[in-house]
Amino acid sequence: MEVIESVSLMQARSEELRLAGHTLAFVPTMGFLHEGHLELMRVARSLADRVIVSIFVNPTQFGPKEDFAKYPRDREGDLAKVEGVSVDICFLPDVSEMYPRGFQTTVSVRELSGHLCGLSRPGHFDGVTTVVSKLFNITKPHIAVFGQKDYQQLAVISRMVTDTNMGIEIVGVPTVREHDGLAMSSRNAYLNRDERRSALCLKKAMDLAAEMFASGERDAKILKNAMERLIVTHPYTSIDYVAVCDPVTLDDLDKVGEQALVALAVKVGRTRLIDNCLLKARNLSERRDL
Amino acid sequence: MEVIESVSLMQARSEELRLAGHTLAFVPTMGFLHEGHLELMRVARSLADRVIVSIFVNPTQFGPKEDFAKYPRDREGDLAKVEGVSVDICFLPDVSEMYPRGFQTTVSVRELSGHLCGLSRPGHFDGVTTVVSKLFNITKPHIAVFGQKDYQQLAVISRMVTDTNMGIEIVGVPTVREHDGLAMSSRNAYLNRDERRSALCLKKAMDLAAEMFASGERDAKILKNAMERLIVTHPYTSIDYVAVCDPVTLDDLDKVGEQALVALAVKVGRTRLIDNCLLKARNLSERRDL
Repeated sequence: MEVIESVSLMQARSEELRLAGHTLAFVPTMGFLHEGHLELMRVARSLADRVIVSIFVNPTQFGPKEDFAKYPRDREGDLAKVEGVSVDICFLPDVSEMYPRGFQTTVSVRELSGHLCGLSRPGHFDGVTTVVSKLFNITKPHIAVFGQKDYQQLAVISRMVTDTNMGIEIVGVPTVREHDGLAMSSRNAYLNRDERRSALCLKKAMDLAAEMFASGERDAKILKNAMERLIVTHPYTSIDYVAVCDPVTLDDLDKVGEQALVALAVKVGRTRLIDNCLLKARNLSERRDL
Repeated sequence: MEVIESVSLMQARSEELRLAGHTLAFVPTMGFLHEGHLELMRVARSLADRVIVSIFVNPTQFGPKEDFAKYPRDREGDLAKVEGVSVDICFLPDVSEMYPRGFQTTVSVRELSGHLCGLSRPGHFDGVTTVVSKLFNITKPHIAVFGQKDYQQLAVISRMVTDTNMGIEIVGVPTVREHDGLAMSSRNAYLNRDERRSALCLKKAMDLAAEMFASGERDAKILKNAMERLIVTHPYTSIDYVAVCDPVTLDDLDKVGEQALVALAVKVGRTRLIDNCLLKARNLSERRDL
């Protein structure tokens, strides 16, 4: 596996691979890799003949009071994991090369960034879309692979790619979960044992909403209230948002029609966790695939 | 010459040309082409083996009270001119394909867009950087050529390309002028005979500043006041701005050091004209090249 730290070398290498006729798939990550990330890489592997992974903890997508400084990092462990799933190139730029003095450009996706996590993390999605634009221009992929756990991120990036004609196919991969249902996240490492137990409330709340929906409940407020009541019975939790919204526009719904996105952000202790699932009217079992 | 109207066809054609090893130079325009535009195309021709020109009057860079609707257009005349300077591909997308329903992404260059024309045309440069990002992603050039008459546009686009790692070489071409010194502009077509005479005040004001600078004047306020006094003696004029600023940051200067950008925007009748020149301490004759 090649390890590349320089932006210009990475860019030249990708250009060379494209000119040689290779198909490139790209998986951007912030490192501290878990099974969810590795699944993205396996999907990338199945779609292209060269796989590039980036590991970059992007400062501009963290708010001033958020966890940028203490975000978990494990360079050597990550490199071993990436190599273990047959990635071809691991790109590890440093912050000063990504954001040199004088940097002042932002890529924004207006409406989609204004919902859900965008409300509680102002500027977060501008940070995400800007760094992903840069990473796309540097790694020049044909395909880029993202997890569905960050549903809004996936929606925002898909919109950006369409709107700016980047010509990259964006692929979403179903959330990978621990045996008990907790969505994999690098931030799970922050949880102590009691918090880890309470963290299950996100999955339980989604399961409750799915059951109610399967039994015919279509009132978004009733679904949300039921999820909120379930979550608050778990210690150490505080709800950031519980939303039942349109899967395309992310607008809040009053009544659920054919389908809806259930999206949650809950603080457990000091750790903010997110999760989501799709409710689909026709065939409930499909929900499990998303 | 190929004429391409479809975004996806243009993108596929450029990808094909890149894969075949060609070097692509791109000249984006809003059409109603004049000798200044043709000079950009000749420079592009000298730098690459395939030249792509776009003609697109971009609605998002016009303010609500500006001249988008009446901006001059001449498709057939433009195509003949473009062909006359041996352009390979002319790309003419329509507005609905560039901005389909749901479009919501903006590319912004913060500080540089907040000076000069950015102050009197709020949102203008966001419109420019967003459409140029799109055009770059569609035409995939190695080199893009812009006129120095829109000095701020050139600065903003260069910054955007650097900041987002687009990997495109941006080339600036000296302003082409009418025999009497008026900078070529599609908007000169709006001027009646009396206004056309008054429009010379921009060039005269810059020449005055250059003479004063050559004689040792370094106080930006004195230079600006002298230019303003000269402009107001011309009928039908109203000054939007007269600036003496840093050529890199576009920040206003108090004292001029080695060099300064003189930039003007003046309404002559209802027509807003811009012009600029560099003042350089070492060798005044270089100024004429810019």
